[in-house]
Amino acid sequence: MVDACPEEFAAFAGLLAEASGEVIRRYFRAEFQVETKFDASPVTVADRGAESAMRTLIEESYPEHGIMGEEFDYVRTDADHVWILDPIDGTKAFVTGMPVFGTLIALMRGDRPILGVIDQPIMRERWIGAAGRRTTLNGKPVATRRNATLRTANHYATHPDMFSGADWDKVSALIAEVGLSRYGGDCYAYALAASGFIDLVTEAGLQVYDFMPLVPVVEGAGGIMTDWNGDRLTRESKGHVVAAANAACHEAALRFLRDRS
Amino acid sequence: MVDACPEEFAAFAGLLAEASGEVIRRYFRAEFQVETKFDASPVTVADRGAESAMRTLIEESYPEHGIMGEEFDYVRTDADHVWILDPIDGTKAFVTGMPVFGTLIALMRGDRPILGVIDQPIMRERWIGAAGRRTTLNGKPVATRRNATLRTANHYATHPDMFSGADWDKVSALIAEVGLSRYGGDCYAYALAASGFIDLVTEAGLQVYDFMPLVPVVEGAGGIMTDWNGDRLTRESKGHVVAAANAACHEAALRFLRDRS
Repeated sequence: MVDACPEEFAAFAGLLAEASGEVIRRYFRAEFQVETKFDASPVTVADRGAESAMRTLIEESYPEHGIMGEEFDYVRTDADHVWILDPIDGTKAFVTGMPVFGTLIALMRGDRPILGVIDQPIMRERWIGAAGRRTTLNGKPVATRRNATLRTANHYATHPDMFSGADWDKVSALIAEVGLSRYGGDCYAYALAASGFIDLVTEAGLQVYDFMPLVPVVEGAGGIMTDWNGDRLTRESKGHVVAAANAACHEAALRFLRDRS
Repeated sequence: MVDACPEEFAAFAGLLAEASGEVIRRYFRAEFQVETKFDASPVTVADRGAESAMRTLIEESYPEHGIMGEEFDYVRTDADHVWILDPIDGTKAFVTGMPVFGTLIALMRGDRPILGVIDQPIMRERWIGAAGRRTTLNGKPVATRRNATLRTANHYATHPDMFSGADWDKVSALIAEVGLSRYGGDCYAYALAASGFIDLVTEAGLQVYDFMPLVPVVEGAGGIMTDWNGDRLTRESKGHVVAAANAACHEAALRFLRDRS
């Protein structure tokens, strides 16, 4: 049982997403992307700028909290509360001008994520999942599709190359059974799962900052998100994840994904 | 040499996109998508409603023009001017809530498309390519990336399953040489090619209403769009298309895609 997330932290996470989005919007489809004289890629500048903005706010408001972010060194990772930050999840979408990347934020209390945010700064959409209350999109409650089955499921994965040979055998067998399959989602696919438009997302090779912020968003909307064996995702998980709209879809997917040994 | 597109037609195409977008916005992420009691899928309702709205405007303003649309019977296809309509290109994106589908409109004069529109009604982005002037996005000129090469190219295709075995051998060999590869673009990838963020789009199995509206958008921005043998796309083309930011990328891609016989 996870304690409810204090409202104070959920509101603060909104401020973090706002600060990150302001930086990212300056670089999305920016002119200099098409020039060659800059040493740093726009994604690097935007990534580091957005994460710096969030870290500054955390250090000001909660200097005792830990921070694990993609772009800089981890700090105070054994604190009671640790923020997990991925300023731009979906860098290939970002650099190609597709508005389907996102800023990811989680707050861990011990080994549990009590808060998760998926923020799309171009569409200005913010999904917030917090332990103890329903996931919201821009303040309005959302829900996964309760009546989805494997055969009617809309399935996403970011790219087939994220799967090794043995993993691909499992995933391709799963995809052969679903209603619709598409690539290219990144975090946005999990957000749309929370909103009831995607029913299964299967991925591999993710880092903790890629997957942990998604868990409260998906689960607070009625979905289930675990590793490929159905076990709870932890900081130590190896990055094989499955998010499902409901228990039926989750169990059906695990039949393909579980370790055979 | 293609005659310039009269401004009158370009302005009228904007009205068509506006009418289509109004219908589509009513159905995008609509509540009834998650219910089962409706017989018609939202994509059907949105598709047919959007195409009907466009056809009504054409019949009112240019009753002598032909119309080739995805959802209804073709009419007057041997007229001097023929409109080609695809109300929702990217239906899988549409039904999963991803704002990267588009409404496609072309105007043919004889065998040449003198006008093309890619309209994204959720992002409210409209690319217009018209013979004789530069492609615009919401009225501002755009350009493909002139200095892109195969090794630095950002490559898109909508889904690997669009390629047969022999086609996939060619495309996968091409993808192995590019800078970045991603799936999931539909028409939006061609629009972002016109804007300089994607450098190569390789696809197969497209219908005339899927590809013809893209040609003036890509070429009016400085790009090149042909079939896999480098030949001009016509109403009779079999739907293997390649769009490139510049001649260097185009020629490099054709080395992988051309018929070997």
